[in-house]
Amino acid sequence: MKDLIDNPPNPLFSERVRASFARQQIMGLFGATLTRLEPGLVEIEMPFREGLTQQHGFLHAGVVTTIADSACGYAALSVMPPETGVLSIEYKVNLLAPARGARFIARGRVLRAGRTIIVCAGDVVAVQDEKGESAQETAIAMMLATMMVIRERPGVLD
Amino acid sequence: MKDLIDNPPNPLFSERVRASFARQQIMGLFGATLTRLEPGLVEIEMPFREGLTQQHGFLHAGVVTTIADSACGYAALSVMPPETGVLSIEYKVNLLAPARGARFIARGRVLRAGRTIIVCAGDVVAVQDEKGESAQETAIAMMLATMMVIRERPGVLD
Amino acid sequence: MKDLIDNPPNPLFSERVRASFARQQIMGLFGATLTRLEPGLVEIEMPFREGLTQQHGFLHAGVVTTIADSACGYAALSVMPPETGVLSIEYKVNLLAPARGARFIARGRVLRAGRTIIVCAGDVVAVQDEKGESAQETAIAMMLATMMVIRERPGVLD
Amino acid sequence: MKDLIDNPPNPLFSERVRASFARQQIMGLFGATLTRLEPGLVEIEMPFREGLTQQHGFLHAGVVTTIADSACGYAALSVMPPETGVLSIEYKVNLLAPARGARFIARGRVLRAGRTIIVCAGDVVAVQDEKGESAQETAIAMMLATMMVIRERPGVLD
Repeated sequence: MKDLIDNPPNPLFSERVRASFARQQIMGLFGATLTRLEPGLVEIEMPFREGLTQQHGFLHAGVVTTIADSACGYAALSVMPPETGVLSIEYKVNLLAPARGARFIARGRVLRAGRTIIVCAGDVVAVQDEKGESAQETAIAMMLATMMVIRERPGVLD
Repeated sequence: MKDLIDNPPNPLFSERVRASFARQQIMGLFGATLTRLEPGLVEIEMPFREGLTQQHGFLHAGVVTTIADSACGYAALSVMPPETGVLSIEYKVNLLAPARGARFIARGRVLRAGRTIIVCAGDVVAVQDEKGESAQETAIAMMLATMMVIRERPGVLD
Repeated sequence: MKDLIDNPPNPLFSERVRASFARQQIMGLFGATLTRLEPGLVEIEMPFREGLTQQHGFLHAGVVTTIADSACGYAALSVMPPETGVLSIEYKVNLLAPARGARFIARGRVLRAGRTIIVCAGDVVAVQDEKGESAQETAIAMMLATMMVIRERPGVLD
Repeated sequence: MKDLIDNPPNPLFSERVRASFARQQIMGLFGATLTRLEPGLVEIEMPFREGLTQQHGFLHAGVVTTIADSACGYAALSVMPPETGVLSIEYKVNLLAPARGARFIARGRVLRAGRTIIVCAGDVVAVQDEKGESAQETAIAMMLATMMVIRERPGVLD
């Protein structure tokens, strides 16, 4: 892992991840942006939106999952070699607290990267107050995800 | 289980689930509708929408998860006693095939219902062609979910 | 799937799975036997043993997981081509009821088989009374597992 | 969480966890011992044993899961109030590398503790060489687990 992080197999990992993220139309719908990108580590942030809520007025767990999955997937893509694509094989999410807050940050990081399988952990926090260094974070979800390095499949290239 | 399904503890389960579903604003955004509702069994259907895609043009896995989670959650709610609410504790999703199709159906069903914990299975299929009895379904996701029966928590009542 | 089950890619799947199962020393320790084997479907049975219990006298959840994992792994192996091996990438288990009973049956079946990834579902039941057609089964666990088809890795060949 | 860890609700948490661990007969069979115990944090260690292997000679994934589950369960129990018991509701395990080594250490820690549900993370490492400060660890598994605080159920008291 340290090797991959010090020497990402694709030196253009940043351009690659940003270009792929820009193609995820749902990120635009959610108002989500890529706020941090390093080899093996990605952060996605989005504001609270009424239109994305479940029945009690919290962000729907599926929305929380969406940004956690993209953060994990792009953390994985950031350490993949060129000429590959990323697909989520599966994930598990524990919802630790209702998703209530002004904005939400999903952080994905690579735990282990093999030739074909990359395992990632993600966590999502809610931030209650206005943007700033001191804003307090509440953990709302934890993800453990399995990503696949796709080779030679037309239509799945990042 | 058979007991709960033959004699749901809330005879008004149908009105209750429909009212709660109507409060999930995200279902409106996704164009999702409740297409089947029996004690312990719920189906949610939604059309493909460009605006909900990931980078390869498939529905984002998080969207697939959203309708599977709601289908499982409402399957659980349909067998809960009155004066309770439902929250997702956690779920795991396996993505079996890319979410491509004209429309998608999530089916949630209760596997085991205890006093506090209800375990559900969900599956999501893509339907390629136009609506009709003969439309072919492709399995795209499987969910295994743990739901909680919430009692006496203001703000979480269904 | 139907294709794979009607025409398993390795016609000697039965000998292959049985030989690999016989090499799992832990199955001997648990007194577990392979009681059913078809393409994409495997059953493993074991008796209750005091020495395998957790603190309340039930079978430890890890033991239940062990037979579910082997049942799922061998269901996957039964539809793999020759010259490959099977490894578990990950699984999730829901424990539906305490593992109490005279004997336990784990059933693994393939949900979807790709070139590299095979997704399986497993369930484990407890049987309370003596062996026989009429013995009542109680569901105690559900597994959703991701198996990998390993190629060209010395030491991982089944 | 910090509160619970600074002031565990049961001041006798250490005696309680040790007594319950001693009743897990399978720990004896595996040669597993409790090597660290703090509020919200538990370590279990076991040696490699031939009799616990799968078909390629690695420790069976179910064995790795067994010690991870006990480590997570006891981390949860260490922050529970008196007159309760712990049961695993569910867990997910990612197997990061084959379980090969001289000994194995499972570490469970509490991520979030509610009145009824306690979410834990566990990791298991293999240690290749002889015991000592400098022994190198290889991560072989990650667990994300949901534990339940059981009240007033005869037979499930820790």
